[in-house]
Amino acid sequence: MILTKTGVEKIRAELGNIPLFDSSLKTLKEEVDAEIALGIDTPIPKDYSGGYTHVRHKKNWIVLQKAGVLYQILDDEKYAKYVKDMLMQYEELYKTLPLHPKTKSYARGKLFWQCLNDANWLVYVSQAYDCIYDYLTKKERKKLEKNLFRPFADHISVESPQFYQRVHNHSTWGNAAVGMIGLVMDDQALIDRAMYGIKGVNLDKTAKDDDGGFLNKDGRAGFLANIEAPFSPDGYYNEGPYYQRYAMYPFLVFATALNNVRPETKIFEYKDGVLLKSINALLNLTDANGNFYPLNDGQKGMSLYNNALVTAVNISYHYGSQDKGLLSIAKEQGRVLLDDSGVAVAIDLRDGKEQPFDKKSINLSDGANGQQGGVGILRNDELELVFKYTSQGSSHGHYDKLSFSLYDELGEVLQDYGLARFVNIEQKGGGNYLKENKTWAKQTVAHNTLVQNETSHFLGKYEIGSQHHSELYFFDNQNDSLQIISAKEKNAYPGTEMHRTMALIKDADFEKPLVLDILKIISEKENQYDLPFYYFGQLITTNFEFTTPKTLKTLGEKNGYQHLWLEAEGKANEGNTQFSWLNNRRFYTITAATNPSDEIHLVRIGANDPEFNLRRDAGFMLRRKNAQNTTFVATMEAHGSYSPVSESAVNASSNIASLKVVLDAEDYTAITISGKSGGNRLFIIANTNASKEARHQLKINGKEYTWVGPYHYNQIK
Amino acid sequence: MILTKTGVEKIRAELGNIPLFDSSLKTLKEEVDAEIALGIDTPIPKDYSGGYTHVRHKKNWIVLQKAGVLYQILDDEKYAKYVKDMLMQYEELYKTLPLHPKTKSYARGKLFWQCLNDANWLVYVSQAYDCIYDYLTKKERKKLEKNLFRPFADHISVESPQFYQRVHNHSTWGNAAVGMIGLVMDDQALIDRAMYGIKGVNLDKTAKDDDGGFLNKDGRAGFLANIEAPFSPDGYYNEGPYYQRYAMYPFLVFATALNNVRPETKIFEYKDGVLLKSINALLNLTDANGNFYPLNDGQKGMSLYNNALVTAVNISYHYGSQDKGLLSIAKEQGRVLLDDSGVAVAIDLRDGKEQPFDKKSINLSDGANGQQGGVGILRNDELELVFKYTSQGSSHGHYDKLSFSLYDELGEVLQDYGLARFVNIEQKGGGNYLKENKTWAKQTVAHNTLVQNETSHFLGKYEIGSQHHSELYFFDNQNDSLQIISAKEKNAYPGTEMHRTMALIKDADFEKPLVLDILKIISEKENQYDLPFYYFGQLITTNFEFTTPKTLKTLGEKNGYQHLWLEAEGKANEGNTQFSWLNNRRFYTITAATNPSDEIHLVRIGANDPEFNLRRDAGFMLRRKNAQNTTFVATMEAHGSYSPVSESAVNASSNIASLKVVLDAEDYTAITISGKSGGNRLFIIANTNASKEARHQLKINGKEYTWVGPYHYNQIK
Repeated sequence: MILTKTGVEKIRAELGNIPLFDSSLKTLKEEVDAEIALGIDTPIPKDYSGGYTHVRHKKNWIVLQKAGVLYQILDDEKYAKYVKDMLMQYEELYKTLPLHPKTKSYARGKLFWQCLNDANWLVYVSQAYDCIYDYLTKKERKKLEKNLFRPFADHISVESPQFYQRVHNHSTWGNAAVGMIGLVMDDQALIDRAMYGIKGVNLDKTAKDDDGGFLNKDGRAGFLANIEAPFSPDGYYNEGPYYQRYAMYPFLVFATALNNVRPETKIFEYKDGVLLKSINALLNLTDANGNFYPLNDGQKGMSLYNNALVTAVNISYHYGSQDKGLLSIAKEQGRVLLDDSGVAVAIDLRDGKEQPFDKKSINLSDGANGQQGGVGILRNDELELVFKYTSQGSSHGHYDKLSFSLYDELGEVLQDYGLARFVNIEQKGGGNYLKENKTWAKQTVAHNTLVQNETSHFLGKYEIGSQHHSELYFFDNQNDSLQIISAKEKNAYPGTEMHRTMALIKDADFEKPLVLDILKIISEKENQYDLPFYYFGQLITTNFEFTTPKTLKTLGEKNGYQHLWLEAEGKANEGNTQFSWLNNRRFYTITAATNPSDEIHLVRIGANDPEFNLRRDAGFMLRRKNAQNTTFVATMEAHGSYSPVSESAVNASSNIASLKVVLDAEDYTAITISGKSGGNRLFIIANTNASKEARHQLKINGKEYTWVGPYHYNQIK
Repeated sequence: MILTKTGVEKIRAELGNIPLFDSSLKTLKEEVDAEIALGIDTPIPKDYSGGYTHVRHKKNWIVLQKAGVLYQILDDEKYAKYVKDMLMQYEELYKTLPLHPKTKSYARGKLFWQCLNDANWLVYVSQAYDCIYDYLTKKERKKLEKNLFRPFADHISVESPQFYQRVHNHSTWGNAAVGMIGLVMDDQALIDRAMYGIKGVNLDKTAKDDDGGFLNKDGRAGFLANIEAPFSPDGYYNEGPYYQRYAMYPFLVFATALNNVRPETKIFEYKDGVLLKSINALLNLTDANGNFYPLNDGQKGMSLYNNALVTAVNISYHYGSQDKGLLSIAKEQGRVLLDDSGVAVAIDLRDGKEQPFDKKSINLSDGANGQQGGVGILRNDELELVFKYTSQGSSHGHYDKLSFSLYDELGEVLQDYGLARFVNIEQKGGGNYLKENKTWAKQTVAHNTLVQNETSHFLGKYEIGSQHHSELYFFDNQNDSLQIISAKEKNAYPGTEMHRTMALIKDADFEKPLVLDILKIISEKENQYDLPFYYFGQLITTNFEFTTPKTLKTLGEKNGYQHLWLEAEGKANEGNTQFSWLNNRRFYTITAATNPSDEIHLVRIGANDPEFNLRRDAGFMLRRKNAQNTTFVATMEAHGSYSPVSESAVNASSNIASLKVVLDAEDYTAITISGKSGGNRLFIIANTNASKEARHQLKINGKEYTWVGPYHYNQIK
């Protein structure tokens, strides 16, 4: 199914001569041998994630799959027997099992507290069964299929339609599980159920799951629908990279199985080859260290070193276009799959075909048709700016339209908080989502974007948010010295339109590319606008006065504000307000064009956090009160360095002499940036015409400018 | 002086065949060539540290010294001419200079705002002058000596006795500067002034410097006195490793000069060879990453990669006993000195003589005679426990007797805050000590040790603290599975005696060595006792209830307490109170033997910090009120791991089932530790007899124990 006959032959022929495959095999063999030595344990299910029975059954599915592979590659009966013995033990156990005793899930499994984990189990174990299929007698197979695999597949599908019959990463696992065991059992009914969902079952379209998402608003279901809906034509997965990584494995492993067993499905060509495109999108959604951007619910630290990404890279290479850049990622991952795709990667790495994987500035559309906003990533030198203007992102979506996060080669500079959860750390709420995920992490104020009147976008309501998305205004990555993205959001706050433009500008007068941020707001009424920037490290200097209170109070009462301590407040300056900090031995400065009625709040996360679930990270927040139409303009610089070994501070100060809004009208906004080391720069954006071909003519302070396209930039010496 | 004639010959002979020397030379040549290309600038002094004129003159002294060395090694006149031209420019400048315009220092320099930096300059520049001495005409030398070097030496000595005439790291620089230029000029008066201080000058013994230390309480002065007083016979420098590192360079470079030019001084044998011993002590005062423990005023991140340590390692190797372990440090440092010592290191590294530098559990006495307490470092597996029971440590001392900090191979686990200063970051108070150094960093509560009645040890007064030191009770590093140190402090709080014992216990039932902490207090009256533990990362779980307030107030009003926000408070348990956290992807747990009247405070640094000078680090604090004689007992565990890539939490819970004080009397304290994975351990300490030979006999719960020596430990199965 995954390992083909020709694949096995090729592996056996090359074995001992393909270093990365050989070392991966050695590691895996040691692991499986150690498990075999420990003996088989299939305990009666009892625990939530992190507890013994959960961990043991999870480990079992992994070892079973691996032992199956070893049997195929090494042709050593020991492994087949181990798989068979454990499967027989599961057969005996499973037929006695009621629903799992823990009741928290909307869809309880039998081996695990949630069907999701049961589906995980079956995706892996069907591979193990496939590997030893011919080793078993017909009678043994019948016993397993009758008492274990078929009821197992039925439980997670027909008996749990609220889990199975959806467009959701949970269902993808369910579909793949049912489909893969169907392929091994050659059971067309199961395969059809996998591909198209359960016939005749329609869910309540208004019902919701544990995370607050609709169970099945559109009534679609099955593997193909799960490919269709969440992936944009560019391969962006609507829940974000963290969940894409999680969903990737069942997508790819079932697709590989289909490709091998039912090549007529042409699954890798489905929807214009979106599965393979999605791998490329996912790899581009990583920072310099390979960590995924934690858009929406994403746990920080998840990276392309995860096993699912080994699968993705290997499959993409083998079944895709053999992009040599993927080889360099496989090399960094340090291991390959022990199958047809892994051996292909290992051979080409051995043969020196590796090239660097070049991450560029890209724009990834969101939505099944690519018409629901997207994510733009601007990259220049070592800076990476991630700009989010997506749709809601299913139940894992956060309420942060037109938000951004900034990275450099050292890691996060201005952060997206990510999720509030300690995945699989049982002491922290069983490893599940924490209350603060809803009250803090999902709220708009937890992100680097605009908050109006201390309420979240779409009132923080999924029913509203899931109906809308931002709109790309334009994206341009064609100019090496200026990458730019611009998008509009009209629905987050009814009656208010936000238009944010962000650019990375390479300029010899600045040590690193300069970030330019223009956020134009047009509203029907006066509002209070907050614009936070969440930084790390320590404040070094500001050019404004601020006071620190004797006791700390929260910045507000709800919508996330109740989690922010107000550490200091001050008045912004006439002209520019600057804030510099030091992190990772580098200096950073935000310069904002402000007026004296703007307020500055220095905040720290952690209020109303009775279980210390939140990190005590800091934010710099601009507040503009009683404003209607207004524009926030800021630059961000990464500059200099500090070495605690030589104790030398280099280029510790901002190079911005002044940042000015020289014109701000309905059709045009114009900014000048002058540097301390000289030079003045003019940036003009056309606010109402994003056409590449449009000619513009504009007089600013008596001087006329003409240009073509949505923006104009030039440096005046 | 530093480069000898035979040294130069050897270097020239081996050049091109000594990789580390060759690469060091190449780096240095590139640096100097780039500076020569830039041209010479000797601006009129104006700025504090970090400002242009400061940075430029500092850079000049470095480049001069290096250019001199290049002239000697490469015999290229270009370098001699560059040195000469710059010296002549300094000669012209210096004779016109008044005192430096900035007035903050107790001893203002001329090139720099403080004499200290002028002395730094002369230590380096006298080497440059030495290197080109023969290149200059007699007339040129006379001009330089008359208008530059002699007045320069006079300014930092006879004209600044408050700087020069002391036992202090500042004076060491001053002495070395005067001595080295004296050696080049062959001026016995200057050399004598360097060795013995200014004849006939006696300072006011009650006057203080900028840091609050006495200027010269004992009236001693000169280089020999500076070797005599601050170094213990074990080579521990009383201000701590951060300042030892700073002082090291003038000590060693002047000693080398003396050794080469005046071998009859036998300077490296002075005080039983303490200069070379001090290098070994300093190398042992580093954590697994080579960072110095920030005892007293120490900036974190300073490490053995600092140039002063390259000097120290090279000199120690060449002029000491050629300890092959030093070669491995030199290799990690990646560069050598371009002199006799550096070439010796490079040759032996080339010849493969390197061995690992093995850091062990050691005890370093403090005080000129080794009779003023000390620092003990317990090391076992990857854990390192630093226990401080020193004397005050001069004006850079903190008020933290019997404090500890804990490290593992990843870095800090339970921290010593270090200093409150951003050295050389001009925006932060000119890079100087910040107000919070006194109000927070030096205070007792900023350390992991006992605070009585919310006051600091010795009332936080230098006059009192500098008269006292703790007393070693015993230290034992002879047992591989149990390293232990124990000390007493009777003066920090008059009427109260503290006796703290800390052990690292290796035990197969625990993943890593267990830290045992016993702090016995005997007092004449009832007090409130606070015992904080400053951790990093995030709270994972506690076994006690706590509440978090709606607004944050400070824990107290003074003595450092005004800088602590009270984030949560709770009551301790009857029996054991546990606190677990996650940092650096590892779990840690403190288990304390408590009773229900004990309070728990979860605190965070950062209150009353109007300029955001303090890190927002967290602490777990035990408080025992209305107690007189009492004993705090705790264990600390490092356990398990969390991977955000595989999302697996391993061994996330403490293995302590119970920690009990089974006996606590004047003469003996006995503790039992039982583990969740079985096993019970008994630890008994004799509180009043530390003799190694003493026989003890004790009945606990009807059972009799006998042993020899100050403690007894056994594991009961």
